[in-house]
Amino acid sequence: MDEDFWAVLPAGGAGTRLWPLSRRSSPKFLHDLTGSGQSLLRATWERLEPLVGPRFLVVTGASHADAVRRQLPMLPDDAVVAEPSPRDSMPAIGLAAALLERRDPGAVLGSFAADHVVTRPDALRKAVREAVALARRGDLVTIGIAPTRPATGFGYIRLGDRLGVPGAPSGCRVDAFVEKPDAQTAARYLADGRFRWNAGMFVARAATLLELLGQSRPDMVATLRAIAADPRHLDALWPTLERIAIDHAVAEPAAAAGRVAVVPAELGWDDVGDFASLGPLLPAQAQVGGIRVATGAEHLLALDSTGVVSAGSGRLVAVLGVDDVVVVDTPDALLVTTRSRAQDVKQVVDALACRGRSDLL
Amino acid sequence: MDEDFWAVLPAGGAGTRLWPLSRRSSPKFLHDLTGSGQSLLRATWERLEPLVGPRFLVVTGASHADAVRRQLPMLPDDAVVAEPSPRDSMPAIGLAAALLERRDPGAVLGSFAADHVVTRPDALRKAVREAVALARRGDLVTIGIAPTRPATGFGYIRLGDRLGVPGAPSGCRVDAFVEKPDAQTAARYLADGRFRWNAGMFVARAATLLELLGQSRPDMVATLRAIAADPRHLDALWPTLERIAIDHAVAEPAAAAGRVAVVPAELGWDDVGDFASLGPLLPAQAQVGGIRVATGAEHLLALDSTGVVSAGSGRLVAVLGVDDVVVVDTPDALLVTTRSRAQDVKQVVDALACRGRSDLL
Repeated sequence: MDEDFWAVLPAGGAGTRLWPLSRRSSPKFLHDLTGSGQSLLRATWERLEPLVGPRFLVVTGASHADAVRRQLPMLPDDAVVAEPSPRDSMPAIGLAAALLERRDPGAVLGSFAADHVVTRPDALRKAVREAVALARRGDLVTIGIAPTRPATGFGYIRLGDRLGVPGAPSGCRVDAFVEKPDAQTAARYLADGRFRWNAGMFVARAATLLELLGQSRPDMVATLRAIAADPRHLDALWPTLERIAIDHAVAEPAAAAGRVAVVPAELGWDDVGDFASLGPLLPAQAQVGGIRVATGAEHLLALDSTGVVSAGSGRLVAVLGVDDVVVVDTPDALLVTTRSRAQDVKQVVDALACRGRSDLL
Repeated sequence: MDEDFWAVLPAGGAGTRLWPLSRRSSPKFLHDLTGSGQSLLRATWERLEPLVGPRFLVVTGASHADAVRRQLPMLPDDAVVAEPSPRDSMPAIGLAAALLERRDPGAVLGSFAADHVVTRPDALRKAVREAVALARRGDLVTIGIAPTRPATGFGYIRLGDRLGVPGAPSGCRVDAFVEKPDAQTAARYLADGRFRWNAGMFVARAATLLELLGQSRPDMVATLRAIAADPRHLDALWPTLERIAIDHAVAEPAAAAGRVAVVPAELGWDDVGDFASLGPLLPAQAQVGGIRVATGAEHLLALDSTGVVSAGSGRLVAVLGVDDVVVVDTPDALLVTTRSRAQDVKQVVDALACRGRSDLL
């Protein structure tokens, strides 16, 4: 694809609801959660490489930079940007934009979380090509995922009119980004047909992104450009940046101003937020009885049971007569819960923190 | 108590439904299932020692004889009788009777399984004293446990008339032993008031037991006496003995002939047949949230959950939002099931055997 298009991969977030697989010291994006043979980070790189070749910027926590480099050894050294501390997505993506703007004033960037799953990478690449065509016109562009269930865990995008831009036949205006809905509202969105899941994928010219950010936060833009001009300022300036998500800082106000476009797509996407969402992403062949197996099928004995199991300690895991169970077995910690409580696993992590068990976090 | 009263402890059975705590190589009676600080075998010895002093015979599988001697080092060497192979309870107790009859023709024996729990040992000793008084008159005597729930996993004893024997004020005739009932019948037995659980405890003169056995199986009695006379015959003769339980070989026909008495008692007894029955036996202080803990309370984190957990591998066990769960964590195998399926744990063991995982049995 065009030599001015870059993939930015924010690789942050602890994946707390995926404890004990995901740990603070080894977060979700470094793991192969679905038994695909590669980590979520590596799979993200693989599906975008045909579009951008070597043009990646991975923005990650300083403590994970080495692990990221080990998983992506094909990238040049300066492709990994280490945040001194987590400041949410706007500073991370904004810094990437400032860095790219210096390399190429016309650069277009696409930002894709490093810890999501996409089972139809061809469809993603097709959608991104359309998004780049729209972004060249000066819009902020997002990919809108066709919802497959009334999910309450995602924000939604309400589609507006079709734009009819050459090279982007699916492109529409975005009417609005809407917050995570309750179950009833989510069912209405699903039935309505005009709503798409917001997967946090954004495509824009670097200059456009900084311009939109500058409308509400000119100081942040100045700081990001100062860091990009001389990375020796990173440690001093980074802590002064506001913690804020790109959705609130840029996407929502830009949508209100009619500056956001969307490419609707069916990608087999999921953010793998918890073990309940992991089950349907696991391949059908990774099934033992009624159990979907994330890892260690050879260590699982399942009788009359349904749910999700990761048998990752090498011990035998026997599950008998339990429905919708989640069992995650690791060498130093075991989790037993249900699919319906999978979203509450953070409570376990919080309780461990209270007990001072930082060795397990 | 009288110098002619002996305790016989049949220490057999794999405790298959308590896998993975109980293994073929290390069966139930060798384990401290209830967190009491001592194994079921050792606790059985402790509650009978005030009655019999050193007069114990433990009949166990040859492969467990050393472990039994290690757990009961206070017993003389010849107190542990090693069966070459399991032949069910009649040959085991019958051999003990033949051995005791040679030592003391008037010996009275009480047979008590080595893998049961009794939470009121004083009440047991009081009942046994009455049983010995009845046994001296030539009856086979059993202890009838007051049922506390409509259990379908135990056989029952139907009480007959009170006997009015001096030294045994509670003693009654046994009308009949009845098989494990279905749920409806069990509820009827509980309401009826005349039914007691058959805990497999039998008290009789050694000579009485052999006489009753000889009525249907004179050859077995002859073989047992031959082994007792010269233990060098054990290996050759033992495999010729019929596999049969004492209930069928002696207790049921003797009851039909009016030769069985019973001492009803409330003992806090359970045979700890599976993990569901383990829960109520665990001390209230061994509770984490709604979970009863068999071992490793310090390794358990329980949120919004009920059930039974044994956290025996040293790893953290986190249970979140699961009701009536059973989690048994050991260094090489993990079991996750429910209280209602606890009785089916044998299916797991069978499946492991099919897979050739004898290392885990």
